[in-house]
Amino acid sequence: MRVSIIGGSSVTDTVRETAAATGRIVAQRGHTVVCGGLGGVMESACRGAKAAGGETIGILPTDRRADANEYVDTPIATGLGHGRNALVVMNGDAVIAIDGAGGTLSEIGLSLVYDRPIAGLGTHEVDGIEACETPEETVKYVETES
Amino acid sequence: MRVSIIGGSSVTDTVRETAAATGRIVAQRGHTVVCGGLGGVMESACRGAKAAGGETIGILPTDRRADANEYVDTPIATGLGHGRNALVVMNGDAVIAIDGAGGTLSEIGLSLVYDRPIAGLGTHEVDGIEACETPEETVKYVETES
Amino acid sequence: MRVSIIGGSSVTDTVRETAAATGRIVAQRGHTVVCGGLGGVMESACRGAKAAGGETIGILPTDRRADANEYVDTPIATGLGHGRNALVVMNGDAVIAIDGAGGTLSEIGLSLVYDRPIAGLGTHEVDGIEACETPEETVKYVETES
Amino acid sequence: MRVSIIGGSSVTDTVRETAAATGRIVAQRGHTVVCGGLGGVMESACRGAKAAGGETIGILPTDRRADANEYVDTPIATGLGHGRNALVVMNGDAVIAIDGAGGTLSEIGLSLVYDRPIAGLGTHEVDGIEACETPEETVKYVETES
Repeated sequence: MRVSIIGGSSVTDTVRETAAATGRIVAQRGHTVVCGGLGGVMESACRGAKAAGGETIGILPTDRRADANEYVDTPIATGLGHGRNALVVMNGDAVIAIDGAGGTLSEIGLSLVYDRPIAGLGTHEVDGIEACETPEETVKYVETES
Repeated sequence: MRVSIIGGSSVTDTVRETAAATGRIVAQRGHTVVCGGLGGVMESACRGAKAAGGETIGILPTDRRADANEYVDTPIATGLGHGRNALVVMNGDAVIAIDGAGGTLSEIGLSLVYDRPIAGLGTHEVDGIEACETPEETVKYVETES
Repeated sequence: MRVSIIGGSSVTDTVRETAAATGRIVAQRGHTVVCGGLGGVMESACRGAKAAGGETIGILPTDRRADANEYVDTPIATGLGHGRNALVVMNGDAVIAIDGAGGTLSEIGLSLVYDRPIAGLGTHEVDGIEACETPEETVKYVETES
Repeated sequence: MRVSIIGGSSVTDTVRETAAATGRIVAQRGHTVVCGGLGGVMESACRGAKAAGGETIGILPTDRRADANEYVDTPIATGLGHGRNALVVMNGDAVIAIDGAGGTLSEIGLSLVYDRPIAGLGTHEVDGIEACETPEETVKYVETES
């Protein structure tokens, strides 16, 4: 299946490692990583997935494929700005949220709208999101619920 | 200024009255109501604004202006589905959230992204939104912060 | 009704005057002008409409209402880039195309998709668009066909 | 590189065969086919590409990946309706137009906006599109111009 990994572009090293570990496990389990294609959580999740031989899709806010981070296999330009957040969620069968600010919150809301199971790691705590402690736990949750 | 009033389409009578009161005060203060153009909080907020002689803009998810509720003066069709949520937020100078589920949560997130002051009435409690007790309080807050 | 007036942003003085005359007649006939909100044909059409006491809506490619030309009464920010062209067409009951390049051609195509009557003045000649000689003729055509 | 193949969903058998031949040649030359993901020219182009061992991306108007034709490797749901036409063009390095009506005309216009070389086969004849006689010719043209 496809798992959308969402989170901010400005993050700490610890968050980067969490995102990379999550991407790696998602890929090891045979799933494709979908993300927003830019830096921070998006880049680290793709890096982790590629290290495990997985596949990655990056759905970009700009109209230039070249804006994707180097670990994105299939960049999709949209030119929609933050409007692309809906596409990031819509193109996953489940969602994992890591850290993040307003943009991530909007994607959490859209996950509920599109009825996608969503697990969170150190992110916004709102009704409908499963708060997890480890990357392993998030992947297990979305596999069970999808 | 323009105030975006956001909230769900399936709501209780009490929420409807809260939304109508908010729309009325926004209009009495000389502001235009922007909303998603459909029923529930959107319709009640427009109804309140029109009762006070105000103006209303409804930014619709469908590609048909005719889908707007009857209290919308200027319907804008988008055909973007939930992607139109970004436009609802972007076209207000400030945001008031009333009740609501996932769609409203996505709009709250986008309000933070677009740096709009946002007041809440019985809605999601997340960092960055000012939790208020009354319609008057929400309007006062967004006037002060804009 | 609403009439979308489409055309390029870099135009000659002659085209500007044609656009202003068209906007003026549309407004004199009691219709609202919808356009892309920027310069060139868009600005001149709005200027003409305002000179005749009419109303104008500008649907912008950017996410900033302030980018609208000064003759737009109701600016709508979209942040969609050229994706907003669909909204310009969708929000009119009929379309008048004046001059224009690729963006205008895309809007002519969308007019056919959304089944809007479309009149042209010195613009692309394609099947489905009514080639006219004067602003008066374009307005008469779209009134008859809507 | 990526080649966007555009054209209508309701087409004759002859057009289908032209689209399949074009997709096949694009794939044989090592390029990825991008299209709108649905039937007609889109499906035939993907079918031709897959028969030659190529790769295909389908950018859908709906919010459901399951709406893609069976020859799409990477479906991208958008929920944008005809607004997704901009994404189909934006995600190719060059464009080949085959047959088609208003939607295809809008994509031709957008190809000019995004400055993509565009070849046509039995499609709209407008300035800026290279009218070709055979699938081979279209591919040669877009390879030379990209």
